[in-house]
Amino acid sequence: MRSMNLNHRAALLCDDMLARADELGIRSQQLDCGTTLIDCGIQAAGGLAAGVMLARACTAELAEVTIVPSGSLPRPTVQVTTDHPKLACMASQYAGWEVKGKGFFAMGSGPMRAAAAREPLFEDLKYKEQAKRAVGVLETAQFPGEEVCGELADKCGVTPDNLILLLAPTKSLAGGVQVVARSVETALHKLHELKFDLDSICSGWGCAPLSPPAKDDVSSVGRTNDAILYGGHVVLHVRCKDAAVTSIGEQIPSSASSDYGRPFGEVLASYEYDFYKVDPLLFSPAMVTLVNLKSGNTFRYGELNQAVLAQSFGESL
Amino acid sequence: MRSMNLNHRAALLCDDMLARADELGIRSQQLDCGTTLIDCGIQAAGGLAAGVMLARACTAELAEVTIVPSGSLPRPTVQVTTDHPKLACMASQYAGWEVKGKGFFAMGSGPMRAAAAREPLFEDLKYKEQAKRAVGVLETAQFPGEEVCGELADKCGVTPDNLILLLAPTKSLAGGVQVVARSVETALHKLHELKFDLDSICSGWGCAPLSPPAKDDVSSVGRTNDAILYGGHVVLHVRCKDAAVTSIGEQIPSSASSDYGRPFGEVLASYEYDFYKVDPLLFSPAMVTLVNLKSGNTFRYGELNQAVLAQSFGESL
Amino acid sequence: MRSMNLNHRAALLCDDMLARADELGIRSQQLDCGTTLIDCGIQAAGGLAAGVMLARACTAELAEVTIVPSGSLPRPTVQVTTDHPKLACMASQYAGWEVKGKGFFAMGSGPMRAAAAREPLFEDLKYKEQAKRAVGVLETAQFPGEEVCGELADKCGVTPDNLILLLAPTKSLAGGVQVVARSVETALHKLHELKFDLDSICSGWGCAPLSPPAKDDVSSVGRTNDAILYGGHVVLHVRCKDAAVTSIGEQIPSSASSDYGRPFGEVLASYEYDFYKVDPLLFSPAMVTLVNLKSGNTFRYGELNQAVLAQSFGESL
Repeated sequence: MRSMNLNHRAALLCDDMLARADELGIRSQQLDCGTTLIDCGIQAAGGLAAGVMLARACTAELAEVTIVPSGSLPRPTVQVTTDHPKLACMASQYAGWEVKGKGFFAMGSGPMRAAAAREPLFEDLKYKEQAKRAVGVLETAQFPGEEVCGELADKCGVTPDNLILLLAPTKSLAGGVQVVARSVETALHKLHELKFDLDSICSGWGCAPLSPPAKDDVSSVGRTNDAILYGGHVVLHVRCKDAAVTSIGEQIPSSASSDYGRPFGEVLASYEYDFYKVDPLLFSPAMVTLVNLKSGNTFRYGELNQAVLAQSFGESL
Repeated sequence: MRSMNLNHRAALLCDDMLARADELGIRSQQLDCGTTLIDCGIQAAGGLAAGVMLARACTAELAEVTIVPSGSLPRPTVQVTTDHPKLACMASQYAGWEVKGKGFFAMGSGPMRAAAAREPLFEDLKYKEQAKRAVGVLETAQFPGEEVCGELADKCGVTPDNLILLLAPTKSLAGGVQVVARSVETALHKLHELKFDLDSICSGWGCAPLSPPAKDDVSSVGRTNDAILYGGHVVLHVRCKDAAVTSIGEQIPSSASSDYGRPFGEVLASYEYDFYKVDPLLFSPAMVTLVNLKSGNTFRYGELNQAVLAQSFGESL
Repeated sequence: MRSMNLNHRAALLCDDMLARADELGIRSQQLDCGTTLIDCGIQAAGGLAAGVMLARACTAELAEVTIVPSGSLPRPTVQVTTDHPKLACMASQYAGWEVKGKGFFAMGSGPMRAAAAREPLFEDLKYKEQAKRAVGVLETAQFPGEEVCGELADKCGVTPDNLILLLAPTKSLAGGVQVVARSVETALHKLHELKFDLDSICSGWGCAPLSPPAKDDVSSVGRTNDAILYGGHVVLHVRCKDAAVTSIGEQIPSSASSDYGRPFGEVLASYEYDFYKVDPLLFSPAMVTLVNLKSGNTFRYGELNQAVLAQSFGESL
């Protein structure tokens, strides 16, 4: 039986990635402490396929991630499907770990979070696992040093030689795919903020347009966010009372936020790049459809906003 | 050389499913008689991936089944592609076997039908195969007992321990995917009704929107049917005289039926839930395109009907 | 580490195809000289799946090729994605080898071109490889004889028994898929004509509608071309000065050509079927989007033309 251990699943995927390093355009190195760094877009070329693999590792291979055409253009779109939304997206994919070191910063995601289980979120998730090899994804333009790796390994309960870190900057192609693959995760996170019971979510499907990487990482963060906030549609199959949906429904999509209506980059600039000043209600897909398996009723909130998307992506409509 | 024996192919797929049971959310049990039951949605959670596997088993892995975005929303859509439409869809996927037992009822499909080959349809198909392990798919909310399994095995020419049954109710997520994957099959069945030569169909492509499961199985049958009747588009590559197409063309799509124009659930209710009173011409995709490889001519009949679809699915347009 | 040798990669794919010959509807034969011929649509039935495999072999498995729904109908569409556009599309997929023999003609493509590296194009590509087994794709309705095979093998630096040739006529289903999978390649070829540096192209994504095969090969060439010229959208991620894009931008899409605006078959007929009289600027996707990773700017040229597409495909809008 294929294991459900998130880190084990991701580690096997990393083995596969390393065996296909040249075609994926990725580069690996082993630090003296034994930690394996897999560069998917810092110095390495990376690419679309590396981004798909990165997203799959990030969801511990409990989600399927594919690039498909969608929309009237049509344009490349990142689709994600999972029957384990809580584990794949919240316990693994959510970038909930701020990894800091001397002059080093990265948003950390991936199954290593479930091995460490130090975030308050894990109390709600009631999930923690032991890892033989821990796998993390770092959204960063820097290589972490031994000190950072040692600390991460320690928190994950593994020796540094059993830590694998996948690295990609937001502005890299692979990094962009990886973030735009967070449509379902973003919906779950918003629902969690709204106190919706994550255990009542059976499956998730989402898609969002692949955003064009910007010149720098900060602007790229804006575009990848907009891909989901203004271009993402997520369908969740849930099993709950209808009232659990309808009581919060209008608050679910990004349009519920007072910060909605302009590119995320502009919003961030207006708060002088202080992420924590942005209305947390903004972080959600443009459109969220909840299909209640218990009642047979469907609820749809929000809509796609091609105008802001075009503005953010620097495209004329 | 990979075998073309339908049951053998499906049995290998079942082995794979069992090895991935936890991630697919399926549960297996072995009856005393040795028959393997794979629950994809009765007590088991199942899910979208289980539904895709179910559909692949149902077509003996002679069709590719994928979930992709489609339409202006876009929404999750079940795409099916096959170069063996007669074998995959008619000899295997078509739910032509009414499985009955003491207090038990299920619509039976899958390659076991080709091992039994008892339906009159198989005289037209001129196909029958010997199975080492027979694989059937039962659309049902009940677990079959040993008596039912014994009878099925017997008809398939295998011992009960060589019978594998995949189970899913229509209202389950996996069951829904499995039924909506029948777009090409539905077109073939309709063409067969219209006396079109199935051997002249070289390949089939189809897609239909994933319907939201309803509260109960009967209502769910309505929605899965509507997904195809009002939302399905099938493209068939055929090799025949153009007249063989044009002489029946207008009758091909669902719109040819006098029962067309309202959700299937309503139609069924109007006949007091007597399936056999529904006009058989109704069962066809909304739109069917026939590309004649012999003449190079393309013929398209019918069109998608988003209004009835939205009504059936309980969505506002 | 999986090899990056184009011929080696394609040869492994051919092994896989042969192991699945029945389900792919392909037939192989070995000539006395030892060359393996894999018929994907001359006498063999072939099909959609055979076409996808053919396209994958043609790109040396450095591109992903899938059939997906797209557009408002929706209709079957051939999507191609690659992070090695120069190698996959120009060194391998481009049909740059006119294979001639006594009464034999075929457009030759696939990695064997990189083993021979005799075309002037390869001087620009600065790529040549040694092959243990050479793999070529011949767009032809004829089987090549031993003389043709011997000559090809010789130019590729292999013995005839180490040559594998995949065969499909343009009007076959598999042949059609294979040609329509050339959206990214067509864009690259056009850019090369416009002296754009191919090494600055990091990744390519494209899709084009599957064209209905016509009655004969010449008419089919028209439709497969139109699928890309009027229905193809290609997105390229590049790394260069914006001026390198904007200085040639307007010339990139097919609409830049004076021959644009009517089905390719008509254009060809107007030149009395002399391919070399057609304006070479015509050969490009309908729409090309260039995303510059260096500047973060996106440039889009051209648009889809459903009217000419419908006329070419013989469909009413």
